[in-house]
Amino acid sequence: MSDQWLNSLQTENPQLGFELAIKLSRMGVKYTLPSDEARQKLRPDYAESADSLIATSQVVATNFQTVAAANNYWKS
Amino acid sequence: MSDQWLNSLQTENPQLGFELAIKLSRMGVKYTLPSDEARQKLRPDYAESADSLIATSQVVATNFQTVAAANNYWKS
Amino acid sequence: MSDQWLNSLQTENPQLGFELAIKLSRMGVKYTLPSDEARQKLRPDYAESADSLIATSQVVATNFQTVAAANNYWKS
Amino acid sequence: MSDQWLNSLQTENPQLGFELAIKLSRMGVKYTLPSDEARQKLRPDYAESADSLIATSQVVATNFQTVAAANNYWKS
Amino acid sequence: MSDQWLNSLQTENPQLGFELAIKLSRMGVKYTLPSDEARQKLRPDYAESADSLIATSQVVATNFQTVAAANNYWKS
Amino acid sequence: MSDQWLNSLQTENPQLGFELAIKLSRMGVKYTLPSDEARQKLRPDYAESADSLIATSQVVATNFQTVAAANNYWKS
Repeated sequence: MSDQWLNSLQTENPQLGFELAIKLSRMGVKYTLPSDEARQKLRPDYAESADSLIATSQVVATNFQTVAAANNYWKS
Repeated sequence: MSDQWLNSLQTENPQLGFELAIKLSRMGVKYTLPSDEARQKLRPDYAESADSLIATSQVVATNFQTVAAANNYWKS
Repeated sequence: MSDQWLNSLQTENPQLGFELAIKLSRMGVKYTLPSDEARQKLRPDYAESADSLIATSQVVATNFQTVAAANNYWKS
Repeated sequence: MSDQWLNSLQTENPQLGFELAIKLSRMGVKYTLPSDEARQKLRPDYAESADSLIATSQVVATNFQTVAAANNYWKS
Repeated sequence: MSDQWLNSLQTENPQLGFELAIKLSRMGVKYTLPSDEARQKLRPDYAESADSLIATSQVVATNFQTVAAANNYWKS
Repeated sequence: MSDQWLNSLQTENPQLGFELAIKLSRMGVKYTLPSDEARQKLRPDYAESADSLIATSQVVATNFQTVAAANNYWKS
């Protein structure tokens, strides 16, 4: 992938960190299936399946562990 | 998502930390399927499936690892 | 959930820590499906399925990581 | 469960640690389905299924992370 | 596998770290199924399945945890 | 299992560490299904299934986390 999409794991606050975790989860899919059109075609398959949504949330949780550690848990 | 829903990973005690882990798990789904109505429609699919409930508990466990670490495990 | 069920992640020994991990795993389900009756109805679905039992053990293992870290692995 | 089966996470070497991880994985199942007979009945379901065996190995890997950390990775 | 494909977990920036995590995920498959042809044959099975793509993203997230820790999260 | 197969988690470089993670993943299966013949019989079930291969790669990723931490990520 030629464009630069990830410059840092540091975010200003936990919510932005959570949103970065979501982005990382989506990029994990995008690297495997780069075509935007092909991914859009699959969207109903998971957006209408409870199990797919739970699995998505699992990926986000895993990536959020990484982002949270990178930010020392935004401890003030 | 425009509203601020996550200001800190610090909680007063482990139970509030567990409840934050549950919130994080639900938000992982909400970012993928923002429509409240659409999510409500899927509720019977997982609330009546043992496997979906176990998978949900797995997401919660993963998020609880993050929250617990952020709170240094509430060591007194 | 109004009652207090989790006051500390510290336990006297690893076995009590493992049992706390089991409790956390069950609570992850209970928060999603609070009705005792509804959960009891699902019990045969997972207690008679090898795959559900393995998935349950996975949740316990994840929670045990958290509890063990909270207790510094009960190093003497 | 009344008997004492887990006194320590420390083991003499990594292989004994791996075997403890296997024991923890089995105990995760045993707490959910305590009857030896019931568990034996399920054995063919997972011992003849590649996916169940892989899932079992995933639980072992997760528990081995805990045991290995508890032993500071048996660094000499 | 005789060729040298992994010399270091250190990368210059987080995006290269994410791409290394993807490589590690693919190598996990390649060691089990070394034939390029056999793996290519399976590609439609997962590239057209939302659940397979989510599972792939889960593996990437797990490997990214390792790579990110190895790089101390690219903290500047 | 009577033979000694795991003496150390330390490896000379990351690739050998990854290969050790693969060995750990296989041993997780072998302890559950010790018969070489029985495991060989299952091989087509997972080597021809994209989902099984992804699940295998997930186990390897988890074990690689452990091995990488044990080697302090081979930081030079």
